[in-house]
Amino acid sequence: MALRPHVAQLRGVDIGEDARRAADDTGLFDLVTDSVAQGVANADVVVLAAPVRTNLRLLTEVGPLLRPGALVIDLSSTKRSIVAAMAELPEPVLAVGGHPMCGKERAGIGSADPTLFRGRPFVLCRTARTQGDALDRARALVRALGALPVDMDPDLHDEAVARVSHLPYLLAATQVASVSELPPEAMALAASGYRDVSRLAASDVDMMTDVLLTNSTYVQEAIARAREQLDGLADLIDRQDVDGLKTLCSRIQANRSGWKIRGPR
Amino acid sequence: MALRPHVAQLRGVDIGEDARRAADDTGLFDLVTDSVAQGVANADVVVLAAPVRTNLRLLTEVGPLLRPGALVIDLSSTKRSIVAAMAELPEPVLAVGGHPMCGKERAGIGSADPTLFRGRPFVLCRTARTQGDALDRARALVRALGALPVDMDPDLHDEAVARVSHLPYLLAATQVASVSELPPEAMALAASGYRDVSRLAASDVDMMTDVLLTNSTYVQEAIARAREQLDGLADLIDRQDVDGLKTLCSRIQANRSGWKIRGPR
Repeated sequence: MALRPHVAQLRGVDIGEDARRAADDTGLFDLVTDSVAQGVANADVVVLAAPVRTNLRLLTEVGPLLRPGALVIDLSSTKRSIVAAMAELPEPVLAVGGHPMCGKERAGIGSADPTLFRGRPFVLCRTARTQGDALDRARALVRALGALPVDMDPDLHDEAVARVSHLPYLLAATQVASVSELPPEAMALAASGYRDVSRLAASDVDMMTDVLLTNSTYVQEAIARAREQLDGLADLIDRQDVDGLKTLCSRIQANRSGWKIRGPR
Repeated sequence: MALRPHVAQLRGVDIGEDARRAADDTGLFDLVTDSVAQGVANADVVVLAAPVRTNLRLLTEVGPLLRPGALVIDLSSTKRSIVAAMAELPEPVLAVGGHPMCGKERAGIGSADPTLFRGRPFVLCRTARTQGDALDRARALVRALGALPVDMDPDLHDEAVARVSHLPYLLAATQVASVSELPPEAMALAASGYRDVSRLAASDVDMMTDVLLTNSTYVQEAIARAREQLDGLADLIDRQDVDGLKTLCSRIQANRSGWKIRGPR
């Protein structure tokens, strides 16, 4: 939707019949198909926007179908495995790993929003197939969406998102699971605090499962760190340590208050 | 601010000089003072809006200063200790425990918002001093704010808020503490997910410390439950159990998607 004004032709590929019908109904696409071969034939740019493990499979499938100089970019939430798979693409194909730092808890084209990327960081990772003007073309595409291109090492990316994106999902899920057996009159007290902490638990399950399983090393590190922090808080409460609890909570409060979301959104 | 149109006289009591000056500047009050005695003299209704443990102390101080039939109501986030302390008030004084299910992460009169209570549940707990028309008067006051009065047992209240309000704060604090050592370029990837999960970590520290320490039994139960849930998720990731992780995340997703915040806010 955000790319439409910038491209001569736009094709959509999806294996789901309902998804294809919904895509057709938007009138955005020149072609909607379930055939990957038809979708990518003679394309200048191919954007892989499926869950991580599906994108890994699609890279193998798409590689031999592309014309020389075609640019493949993905939107997957983890980058190490993608960057490694992109290195295996046929030599004349260009590829850059991508990850826009924005999203919604609702999936599907019905939730599409052309302003979603605006002002948000969009990570770009070099690969063995990032040759010639590939990176410049990827940056131009990112800027066309209104996003801010950020070059980043795939390892640092995966470690960072484990902490700032995958851990938030797991804590949101933990919060929801922790109230599941409460009676309705108790749940009636849930307000904006519960709403915000738990929002991500409504995220698309296929996407999140893929993300967690393809980034498990860094995710486990993030969980270990979170356990340590929660245990520290629990211990101070257990010992009724007013001063210790105030000191720790004040440091955390200062950290959070000093943080600003990057970009206008 | 929300009560002003409904009362003949409004007095504000605060020990902080800056807070009193800011209160004076709003022009809302007929009297702003640091003297509790002056503030509550001949009052029909006294609203205790300090942190829990300060409210407990204030109840002892205020009791002997009130005229017979005066109604004391508090806004504390935990109710068992308050309801017990209200039972010790002198016999002719009336008292109802209160807890409005709304709030902001910013404290102080500069953040006051007369629409904050609108459409939100406002818990009322009977006490040994809830006699005569005390409960009706408390309900009328709650409705004047635009809130919805909900009668509740103080034990059920404290157990419920441990799960739907205090645990969210602790998980938000855990999230912020878990990213504290990340380099700035990694933190630049934090987006709306991190923002929402961590928002409560900016809450007023004195208030939250009091809440956690006066509700420690139920808070520890909530933490234990959260640990169990987080460990369950970690274990599925560790074993790369795709089906198990999808099943659990789908159940959690359904729970969260089926939840609606009560009231229009």
